[in-house]
Amino acid sequence: MAMTVIECVPNISEGRRADVISAIADSLRAVPGLRVLGVQSDPVHNRSVFTLAGDEKALSIGIPTLFEKALAAIDLRTHTGEHPRMGAVDVVPFIPIEGVTMEVCVALAKSVAADVAEHFQVPIFLYEEASPNPARKNLEDLRRGEFEGLTAKMALAQWAPDYGPSAPHPSAGATAIGARMPLIAYNINLATDRLDVAKKIAQAVRMSSGGLRFVKAMGIPLEGRGIVQVSMNLTNYEKTPIFRVFDLVKREAARYGVQVLESEIVGLVPSAALTQTAEYFLQLEGFSADQILEKKLAD
Amino acid sequence: MAMTVIECVPNISEGRRADVISAIADSLRAVPGLRVLGVQSDPVHNRSVFTLAGDEKALSIGIPTLFEKALAAIDLRTHTGEHPRMGAVDVVPFIPIEGVTMEVCVALAKSVAADVAEHFQVPIFLYEEASPNPARKNLEDLRRGEFEGLTAKMALAQWAPDYGPSAPHPSAGATAIGARMPLIAYNINLATDRLDVAKKIAQAVRMSSGGLRFVKAMGIPLEGRGIVQVSMNLTNYEKTPIFRVFDLVKREAARYGVQVLESEIVGLVPSAALTQTAEYFLQLEGFSADQILEKKLAD
Repeated sequence: MAMTVIECVPNISEGRRADVISAIADSLRAVPGLRVLGVQSDPVHNRSVFTLAGDEKALSIGIPTLFEKALAAIDLRTHTGEHPRMGAVDVVPFIPIEGVTMEVCVALAKSVAADVAEHFQVPIFLYEEASPNPARKNLEDLRRGEFEGLTAKMALAQWAPDYGPSAPHPSAGATAIGARMPLIAYNINLATDRLDVAKKIAQAVRMSSGGLRFVKAMGIPLEGRGIVQVSMNLTNYEKTPIFRVFDLVKREAARYGVQVLESEIVGLVPSAALTQTAEYFLQLEGFSADQILEKKLAD
Repeated sequence: MAMTVIECVPNISEGRRADVISAIADSLRAVPGLRVLGVQSDPVHNRSVFTLAGDEKALSIGIPTLFEKALAAIDLRTHTGEHPRMGAVDVVPFIPIEGVTMEVCVALAKSVAADVAEHFQVPIFLYEEASPNPARKNLEDLRRGEFEGLTAKMALAQWAPDYGPSAPHPSAGATAIGARMPLIAYNINLATDRLDVAKKIAQAVRMSSGGLRFVKAMGIPLEGRGIVQVSMNLTNYEKTPIFRVFDLVKREAARYGVQVLESEIVGLVPSAALTQTAEYFLQLEGFSADQILEKKLAD
């Protein structure tokens, strides 16, 4: 029987009080079937990121547990920190990893949103794939004005929440809950020190200036090495695959007489993103992930 | 803690009596930590192939169990079948899959060989990576003459076994035990019906006629489709990677004005063979398998 794995990466507005953060992590670890893969706290941002994995049931229990503990401990009226935030539980994305579709993650986001909105009287904004409204997909747009501007913002008709009360929770603000693909942090280093070339390539490949739909990119110098880098986030590797980004950057670089020196993946990458790359370059037909030996062994 | 997975694919000389085969499979399933991933029996060959997975301990118990059951049920003096064979348990390869090196599989092959040779008085020939002797690596060479020729063959000094008695077991013959890499069955289809081109390319890429060390290849027609195929076995994807084989076939095909139509992997492929392909084409530097999300989740 194939396993269902959904990743969930809730961000809470507390990154300083170790006892509070540990207590929340412990309460999540106590949820049957839920795994806490990581807890990263940043005292300057005054924010913590939990990396969780589980199936729908485990996360349906885990996220309300997180709300209960976080709301009891965090009061945004006295919260300071460098990272923008609008809620005690600020953002909760569900990410399909294995044996599960985006549609399932969207449905889970909505049911968890309805549940916590009713239970804790916190307004919930759906975002990314979970939001049917194109103007409400982008987290930065939802969060603009932060907790302090939320009362005024929510008074506008277009900022009515998707679930819960029409005004912010007094101490906990509002929460964005959504579904998205896993991010891939992908950089391509160029065999040149010409920063203008890296910047022009970044401009050519990123969506915001006319490039590929799921690419964010900037050109930066790698000071110590005397070379430049096209530094990217790939936000949906199924629709904008890594090999297409690589080929486009290589082609744009050639236009300036520049070679690709190397590329790098920072942090984690879904197996499927590598498999699709092999399929593309080998012109593989009829390949299925079930043919991967380790997957067969794991099932 | 990372898991150790060794695959083991013993072949026994019985492919007709379902009760015997089932009883052996059941006794293997009863070994703690040993998984029986598949049992394939061929009545024409009169031979069965068990696909097992486990760690060193599980296989150290499982293979002697297999010998005990197989030797009690199989008598090669009355065995007929189309596949060449020299033993009741004919061949036992250990294959490193995850969290384990070839060296560990070689050591396991030797310790299991010593154990079963002593316990069952069956002569054992080490083969492939487990054999230090270049003339004894190839299974076909070991098995030439089959069970019926074994007494005469073993009378020659160069065919003294690595473990056990110097003459064949009366009913069970001898067994080859070794370690090898997983095979990848990999085919490349050409956009032409010219069989001579497929045959010339096969000749160019396979080791036996001067090509790459770990490639076996032949050119064949795909009758129904009006095209030809370079049909290959890659016997060590770490040393002769799949991408290098693809690139070489593509280049040789171009020399005849022929394009690669597509390629296909038949059956299972280790994740690392796909990852190394993505690394190659993306010019990835500093990538580690620990960055694969599913691997992180599995650990």
